[in-house]
Amino acid sequence: MVDVSSLIAALPDKTVVTDPDILAAYRQDRAADPTAGTPLALVRAQSTADVQTAVRWCAEHAVPIITRGAGTSLSGGATAVDGALMITTEKMRGVTIDTATRTAVCAPGMFNAEVKAAAAEHGLWYPPDPSSFEICTIGGNAATNAGGLCCVKYGVTVDYVLGLEVVLADGRAVRLGGKQLKDTAGLSLTRLFVGSEGLLGIITEVTVRLLPAQNAACTVVGIFPTVHDASKAVLAVTSQTRPAMLEFMDQTTIGAVEDMLAMGLDRTAGAMLIAQSDAPGPAGMAEIALIEQAFRDNRADEVFTTDDPDDGEAFTAARRAAIPAVERHGSLLLEDVGVPLPALPDLVDGVAAIAAAHDVTIAVIAHAGDGNTHPLIVFDPTDDDEARRAQSAFDEVMGLAVQMGGTITGEHGVGRLKKGWLPAQLGDDVMELTATIKNALDPQGLFNPGVLL
Amino acid sequence: MVDVSSLIAALPDKTVVTDPDILAAYRQDRAADPTAGTPLALVRAQSTADVQTAVRWCAEHAVPIITRGAGTSLSGGATAVDGALMITTEKMRGVTIDTATRTAVCAPGMFNAEVKAAAAEHGLWYPPDPSSFEICTIGGNAATNAGGLCCVKYGVTVDYVLGLEVVLADGRAVRLGGKQLKDTAGLSLTRLFVGSEGLLGIITEVTVRLLPAQNAACTVVGIFPTVHDASKAVLAVTSQTRPAMLEFMDQTTIGAVEDMLAMGLDRTAGAMLIAQSDAPGPAGMAEIALIEQAFRDNRADEVFTTDDPDDGEAFTAARRAAIPAVERHGSLLLEDVGVPLPALPDLVDGVAAIAAAHDVTIAVIAHAGDGNTHPLIVFDPTDDDEARRAQSAFDEVMGLAVQMGGTITGEHGVGRLKKGWLPAQLGDDVMELTATIKNALDPQGLFNPGVLL
Ligand SMILES: Cc1cc2nc3c(=O)[nH]c(=O)nc-3n(C[C@H](O)[C@H](O)[C@H](O)COP(=O)(O)OP(=O)(O)OC[C@H]3O[C@@H](n4cnc5c(N)ncnc54)[C@H](O)[C@@H]3O)c2cc1C
Ligand SMILES: Cc1cc2nc3c(=O)[nH]c(=O)nc-3n(C[C@H](O)[C@H](O)[C@H](O)COP(=O)(O)OP(=O)(O)OC[C@H]3O[C@@H](n4cnc5c(N)ncnc54)[C@H](O)[C@@H]3O)c2cc1C
Repeated sequence: MVDVSSLIAALPDKTVVTDPDILAAYRQDRAADPTAGTPLALVRAQSTADVQTAVRWCAEHAVPIITRGAGTSLSGGATAVDGALMITTEKMRGVTIDTATRTAVCAPGMFNAEVKAAAAEHGLWYPPDPSSFEICTIGGNAATNAGGLCCVKYGVTVDYVLGLEVVLADGRAVRLGGKQLKDTAGLSLTRLFVGSEGLLGIITEVTVRLLPAQNAACTVVGIFPTVHDASKAVLAVTSQTRPAMLEFMDQTTIGAVEDMLAMGLDRTAGAMLIAQSDAPGPAGMAEIALIEQAFRDNRADEVFTTDDPDDGEAFTAARRAAIPAVERHGSLLLEDVGVPLPALPDLVDGVAAIAAAHDVTIAVIAHAGDGNTHPLIVFDPTDDDEARRAQSAFDEVMGLAVQMGGTITGEHGVGRLKKGWLPAQLGDDVMELTATIKNALDPQGLFNPGVLL
Repeated sequence: MVDVSSLIAALPDKTVVTDPDILAAYRQDRAADPTAGTPLALVRAQSTADVQTAVRWCAEHAVPIITRGAGTSLSGGATAVDGALMITTEKMRGVTIDTATRTAVCAPGMFNAEVKAAAAEHGLWYPPDPSSFEICTIGGNAATNAGGLCCVKYGVTVDYVLGLEVVLADGRAVRLGGKQLKDTAGLSLTRLFVGSEGLLGIITEVTVRLLPAQNAACTVVGIFPTVHDASKAVLAVTSQTRPAMLEFMDQTTIGAVEDMLAMGLDRTAGAMLIAQSDAPGPAGMAEIALIEQAFRDNRADEVFTTDDPDDGEAFTAARRAAIPAVERHGSLLLEDVGVPLPALPDLVDGVAAIAAAHDVTIAVIAHAGDGNTHPLIVFDPTDDDEARRAQSAFDEVMGLAVQMGGTITGEHGVGRLKKGWLPAQLGDDVMELTATIKNALDPQGLFNPGVLL
C-alpha cells in the first residue's frame, strides 16, 4: 500500500481523508456496483491547484484516480477500485454569471440546479436538465454529456459547453475554448472532453452558454391503452415539431410513482406521455393543438392540457421521480438505450417481449422525443435465479438497441456497467481508436481505470 | 521522387492524374498561397475503397497526403506541398434522404447546396449555409466545422453531424456515430473529427440531421452612419433575441458589392445590417419590431423591412457576394476573427484603428450575431511596401482578437495561413495536447502536413 503522508503534507489541512467510514461512503455511486473496491484515500479538492497536486502525486506513485462529482452515476462511472485515490469536486464551488456574454463560469462541484438558479437570478436559463438536476454536479454533467427532459428541443450538455479547464494526466491544467460562441481554432478539444467520462482528465471549470429565460410552458398529458400506441403518438408529434418536452412512462412506472407520490395517476393506463410546449402565443397554441391531435389520433383514452405551471411541474416531477419510485420495488438494472426515432415503437415492443421471455419486470420510462429510453429491470437481488434472468434481459435489451442501429447509452454513459457491450456497438476499430486517444493522453492509465475500456 | 505506377495499378482507370496542367490547377485553394508546392499526383477517389487504397499506398511509401474537397478554403487548408498525393473527394457523390429519421447520408463530394436541395425535395432543411454553399463540399464543411449566415440561430456544422465514416492513417475505415439523436457510447469521436481540418483522417461519408423546412423569413435592413453604431445595434438585438440572420457590411464592402451587383445600395452608408426573422406569426412580428427598434435606437438613418422573399434573398445574396466583390479591388488577406459578443464594437473600432495606423484598406463583413467578423485586408501584391503593411495589419487584427479573449478563426479554420498565431491563442500546453492527439492518430504525419501544426 502506498504511503499517503506525502500527499497529506502537500495539500491543505483536512483535504485528504483516510477515515475508513467516510471512504466506505464514497466507494460506490448510484449504480451500487457490488464489485467496488476500497480507495486508498479521498481528496476533497478545493481548487484546481489541489487537483493538480493530487494528480501529480498519483502520477509519481502510479496510483489510479477515480474522479467523483456527486456520485449520481447510473453506470458505475464513479466506482472506486482498490488502492485508487478518489478525487471529489464537491468542495469546488462557485458560479459567476456574465450577463454581457450570457455565460456562466462554474466550479465543477456546483449542482446543476445551482447553476440554473444563478442564471435565473439574471433572467437567464441553463437548459440541460437531467432528472437528477438537484443532486448532480455540472462537472459530472460535462464529463457524461448529460441529457434530460428539455433536450428534445434544447440539446444536451455539449451543446452548451463553450469552455473547460481540465487537469491532464501529468498535472498540467489547460484551458479549452472560452466565452466566444464560434471558434474553430485548433482541434475540437472542448467537445472531446465533454462526455469523456473522466478518462482523459479532470474537469475543474466549466463555461456554459445561457439562454433567455424559458417561456411559460403549457403541458399536455396523454393516457394510452398500450405502450405501442404511446410510442406511435411520439412519432406523430416528432414528425411535425420538436416540443420542449416529450416524456414517456409505462404502467409499471405509473404505479410505482403513484405508490410514492399518491397524486392520483391512473394506474390502469397502459402508458402516459407528458409533453410541453414553450412556444409563445399562437405558435404555442398551434403546437399544443398538434400534440393533442397526435395523441388522439393514436388512441389516447384521455388528453389533458394545462397552462398552470404548478400542474405542469407536478407531472414533470412525477416523471423525474420515476427511477427512485421504481427502485423501491427491487434492485434495478438501469438501461439507457436509444434508437433512431422511427424505431421507438419496435424497441418498446421488443423490450416487452424480452421481459416476457425472461419473466422479469421491466418498467419503461423514456425521453421519448429523442428516442432515448430507460427500461428499468426490477429484480430481487436475494433471488439468484431472478437476478440471472434480469441480467440476461439487460444484455438482450442492449443487443436489441445495437441491432436496431441504436446506442447502448443515450445519456448515462458507459461507465463500468455497460463496457462489455460497447465493442458490439462501436466495433473493434473504433474501440482501438478510443484506446489510442486514451493512451496518448493518459499513458499511465491513471484516470478511471475500468471505465469504458 | 516516388514512383506512382503501383498506385495507378491499384486504383480504377483514370483515378490517378499526373498531368502537370491538371496538377497545377489543384495546387492551391482559394487562399492562393504562393508557397504552394507541386503534388506528386492527384487521386480522384470515387469510393471509400479508393481512399483506403490511396492512404495505404501513402503510408507504405511515406508520401504526405493533402485532402481536398472543392478547394474553397480561405486559410490554405487544401494547399499542396511538394511530393504530396492530393486526394480529392469531388467524384464521391450521392446523398440519401431518410425522411423517417430526418437525416441525410452524404458522400463527401456533394456540394452543400446539393444537400440542401435534396432535403428540400422532402420538405426538409439542412441549415448550415456558408456563403460559399454553392461551391463547397459537405466533406469540407465537416472538416472545417463551417459556419454561415443562419448559424446565429441554428448553429454550425458540428451541431448537425450525427455520424461520419472516416479513413484513418493506416487505411482503416471507421464509422462514428449514426442516425440516433442522442448517443454517449464512448468518446465523442464524431465531434473530434468535425473541424479537424483533415489532420486526423479523411471523411468519406457524413450523416447530418435535418430540420423541417424553414418558415418564410422577413428581412430587416438597417443603414447606419458608423460601424460603431451598427455594432451597438447588433448587441441591442442579440441581448433580446437570436434572429435567423444578423449580418454586417461596412462602407468599403457596400461600395464593392454595389460595383459588382449594381443593386442600388447606399454607398454613403457607414455600415449596413441585414437581419432576418423566421419566427412564425405574431412571434415573428414581435421579433421584427424588436429588431427595427434596436436599429433605430442605435442611430439607424434608415430601416427597411420586407417580407418579400426575393427582396430578402437579394440582400442576402449581396452579403454573400462580399468576398468576391472586395477581391476585385486587390489581393485579400482574409481575417475570420471572433470575440465574445459584447466586445464586438471594440473589435470593429480596433480594426479601423489598425487600418489607419498601417494605411491599408480593411473592408469588414461579419456574421455579427455570433461575434464572428471577417476583416478583409485589401492590398496590391505588386506594391511591396503595401503588402508588408497589409501583413502587419493582418497580424495585429489577430493579436487584438486574442487579447480580447476571442479567436483567430471563427469558422474558416487555421489552415496554413493562421497557424503562426494559434499558439498565442491556445497556449503551449494546448498546442502540445493537439500534437499529442495528432501523433497518436497519424504517427507518420501523413495527413495535411503544414496545416494547423
Ligand atoms: C434519479 C436519477 C436520475 C437521473 N436522470 C438523468 C437524466 O435524466 N439524464 C442524464 O443524463 N443522467 C441522469 N442521471 C445520471 C447522472 O445524474 C448523470 O450522469 C450526472 O451527469 C452525473 O453527475 P455527478 O456529479 O453525480 O457525477 P458522478 O456520478 O460523480 O460521475 C459521473 C462520471 O463522470 C466522471 N466525473 C464526474 N465529475 C468529473 C469531473 N469534474 N471531471 C472529470 N470527470 C468527472 C466520473 O468519474 C464518472 O465517470 C440520473 C441519476 C439519478 C440518480
Ligand atoms: C466566397 C467564399 C465565402 C465563404 N464563406 C464561408 C462562410 O460563410 N462560412 C464558412 O465557414 N466558410 C466559408 N468559406 C470557406 C470555405 O468555403 C469553407 O471552409 C468550406 O467548408 C470548405 O469546403 P471545401 O469543400 O471547399 O474544402 P477545401 O477547401 O477543399 O478544404 C478545406 C479543409 O478541409 C479539408 N478537407 C476537405 N474535405 C475533406 C474530407 N473529406 N476529409 C477530411 N478533410 C477534408 C482540407 O484538407 C482542408 O484542410 C467561404 C469561401 C469562399 C471562397
